[in-house]
Amino acid sequence: MSVTGIETVDVPVEACRLVADYVVPCRADTPADVIAGGAVDIGPDGRIAAVGRPDELGPPPGPVRAVGGLLLPGLVNVHAHTPMSLIRSVGDGLPLMRWLKEAVWPLEGRMTPDDAHVGMLLGSAEMLLAGVTTSCEMYLFEAEVVAAAASTGARLVITPGVISALTRNGDVEPRIDEITEFHRTHHRPGERVTVGFAPHSIYDLTPAQCGEIAARAQAVGALFHIHLEETRSEREQVLAAHGATATQLLADHGALEGPTLGAHGVWLDETDRRLLGEAGAAVAHCPQSNLKLGSGIAPVAELLAAGVTVGVGTDGPASNDDLDLWEELRLAPLLARGSGHDPEAMAAPAALSLATSGAARALALPDVGHLTPGTWADLVRVDLDVPSFTPLRLDTLLTHLVFAGSSRFVTDVWVAGRPVVAGRRLATVDLGAVMAQGQQRADRLAGA
Amino acid sequence: MSVTGIETVDVPVEACRLVADYVVPCRADTPADVIAGGAVDIGPDGRIAAVGRPDELGPPPGPVRAVGGLLLPGLVNVHAHTPMSLIRSVGDGLPLMRWLKEAVWPLEGRMTPDDAHVGMLLGSAEMLLAGVTTSCEMYLFEAEVVAAAASTGARLVITPGVISALTRNGDVEPRIDEITEFHRTHHRPGERVTVGFAPHSIYDLTPAQCGEIAARAQAVGALFHIHLEETRSEREQVLAAHGATATQLLADHGALEGPTLGAHGVWLDETDRRLLGEAGAAVAHCPQSNLKLGSGIAPVAELLAAGVTVGVGTDGPASNDDLDLWEELRLAPLLARGSGHDPEAMAAPAALSLATSGAARALALPDVGHLTPGTWADLVRVDLDVPSFTPLRLDTLLTHLVFAGSSRFVTDVWVAGRPVVAGRRLATVDLGAVMAQGQQRADRLAGA
Repeated sequence: MSVTGIETVDVPVEACRLVADYVVPCRADTPADVIAGGAVDIGPDGRIAAVGRPDELGPPPGPVRAVGGLLLPGLVNVHAHTPMSLIRSVGDGLPLMRWLKEAVWPLEGRMTPDDAHVGMLLGSAEMLLAGVTTSCEMYLFEAEVVAAAASTGARLVITPGVISALTRNGDVEPRIDEITEFHRTHHRPGERVTVGFAPHSIYDLTPAQCGEIAARAQAVGALFHIHLEETRSEREQVLAAHGATATQLLADHGALEGPTLGAHGVWLDETDRRLLGEAGAAVAHCPQSNLKLGSGIAPVAELLAAGVTVGVGTDGPASNDDLDLWEELRLAPLLARGSGHDPEAMAAPAALSLATSGAARALALPDVGHLTPGTWADLVRVDLDVPSFTPLRLDTLLTHLVFAGSSRFVTDVWVAGRPVVAGRRLATVDLGAVMAQGQQRADRLAGA
Repeated sequence: MSVTGIETVDVPVEACRLVADYVVPCRADTPADVIAGGAVDIGPDGRIAAVGRPDELGPPPGPVRAVGGLLLPGLVNVHAHTPMSLIRSVGDGLPLMRWLKEAVWPLEGRMTPDDAHVGMLLGSAEMLLAGVTTSCEMYLFEAEVVAAAASTGARLVITPGVISALTRNGDVEPRIDEITEFHRTHHRPGERVTVGFAPHSIYDLTPAQCGEIAARAQAVGALFHIHLEETRSEREQVLAAHGATATQLLADHGALEGPTLGAHGVWLDETDRRLLGEAGAAVAHCPQSNLKLGSGIAPVAELLAAGVTVGVGTDGPASNDDLDLWEELRLAPLLARGSGHDPEAMAAPAALSLATSGAARALALPDVGHLTPGTWADLVRVDLDVPSFTPLRLDTLLTHLVFAGSSRFVTDVWVAGRPVVAGRRLATVDLGAVMAQGQQRADRLAGA
């Protein structure tokens, strides 16, 4: 029973061997690998013990479960504001800044910690049911976000936000101290939680403040997560104010020297892309949100060519309007091909990596996003026995998975070896109670 | 039992009243209309007898079924080559003409009539399960396509293709006669089949041949359906050969004077759009296929502004790679907004019309695509009791339906009052047998 009164169930790790029709490991060095009739062994520590064809493996670590279908790593959502699930779809038709000021912020201003807790439970449940096992959250109410993900069983990268409106006289130091302390107390990779720092943006804070926050993140090896070049007007505003782009300013202030994730990156130019690539930085590509708000289409093929790590993100459910990362996984290659008039722009294995190994790399999570012995057993089973996957052929399977794959076909999900979704049902939280509370709290926020 | 040996069940019309949490009628004059607690009465003739709140309606025409959820018109797919489901995902990474010549046509060349029959059964089943009740098919094997749709219970616009490679010495007359005769014998709107004429394109045939085919279509009031400006190279080729665009050539040859549907329309310029708008013509927008093949992004907002009717289509499942029209319905406004940097570019009701009333208008089917007394009872029930639709609010419901709606949430489907999908199961055809035959025939086509 959590503070919101919603029942949660502690599902234990089950050491076992899962045998599937196909295993897609999504390893960075062999992204096109598909193992027909493959198996994944889950150890009692919740990590992957072995991957391969059963006849090549040693004795199984527990019961052998013939699950069939296709197993791939749990999907990784690199940029989300999941508690915003309580205000889905608001303000449709407004451009970003008006959307924030007129529709989103007035509602978020009424949000209580318990609202954020329920919003995160709701969105986390939605993601797990869709096969998204990890999300990187940029939000306030960090303690509630952590508590909610602990209940659902999701893996979480929590990057508490720093935003000028919530400081006293623009002094960000107390909030940086708070996040530093939160990192000390909550950064527990072994318990599915890592903590980073998230200044909202260089246009909301100052370049010097962003540099200071980055330095504090780097001091503890934490992820630095910031909105970056989402809209053209934001880019022009920064150029007018500083005579340099946001990326140049971040570089000048030493902010790219640790693990860095810039969200959106729609308007990054060639110099920006080179700076990010040289720094080993990552970009969170949020195609659906960027399109819906009219922000534009991020130059993902060019980012990848510059050596930038790219992962896909849903952004908040207020501008998406769901948390189904399969849609972003499909949109990334579609947009790269369509906007560049190049059908070769992003092959299926490269697209898949944006939601698996590449996404995990963007979050500095080396033990997530690929099926390799020793990494966490975060797994998704996809049902292939459906018309949309018929006929099924090995030579087109990954293409088909990217362009026809869907949360619709996700049946089972494991996080660190725990079966959190079984037979399309969430095993960890009372979903009906979460949905009922979500509706009730959303009605109150909307003043209904 | 059909010629392929697959069991089919004849499901009768059930006159009844369906009571839902929300009814979305999608009428062209009130596209934003949502009836909370609405009902749809299905008459014994398979047509809609009444729509409204139960307290405003007369006595129900049969049993009252409290189905809950959301009822909307069955979705209408305006451009498909559904038997290509047997060759899904082939040739990924190739641009259109190489994709056709190197990957698609060699496989299609081996296709037998029974293969086309099974491919259509498979794709038709996939569409019905996704809530797509009508498709406009441009294909050969027209008799088999009609037979398959008759088995699944789908509504069909069959536009048999005319393609130069299958003529003797370029003489299209025998094929035009064949289609005219097929129209006479198979055009049965009351039995869910309408027949049109489909010259492949102006670059494959000659402008004069296209004009001749259009004249024959117009003589019987049939739809003229043609590929139009899919790729830049196709546009340049036509301009170089004729000194005019395909649209200008069609206009010059009188081909826009009857119901006309141009498929793709990615490269239509302002003059083309004006010509199409003045002629009352329609364009089939196939965003996913156009993106995947690197063809580009059709100027849909500009087409609508020019008065062109627009519907969405999946194109063939070889370049999509599924037949889930919800994805095109969502992509249309996303691309219009994102490529135009305008979040107001296409409001949710306008987007929804591209798969409902607008799509039906594009196919010259006045009695389909909107819930109005007297029209066919082609209906879809969407389950809203899911995390992705929580919270649910009346003022954001249509936005949410467009941007978060999914075939995943379709539970029940009616075509002309027949319940063809019930509780997510196809009621008309033995789906397992269709899938098994689909796999077997695809393996043979691929030479496996």
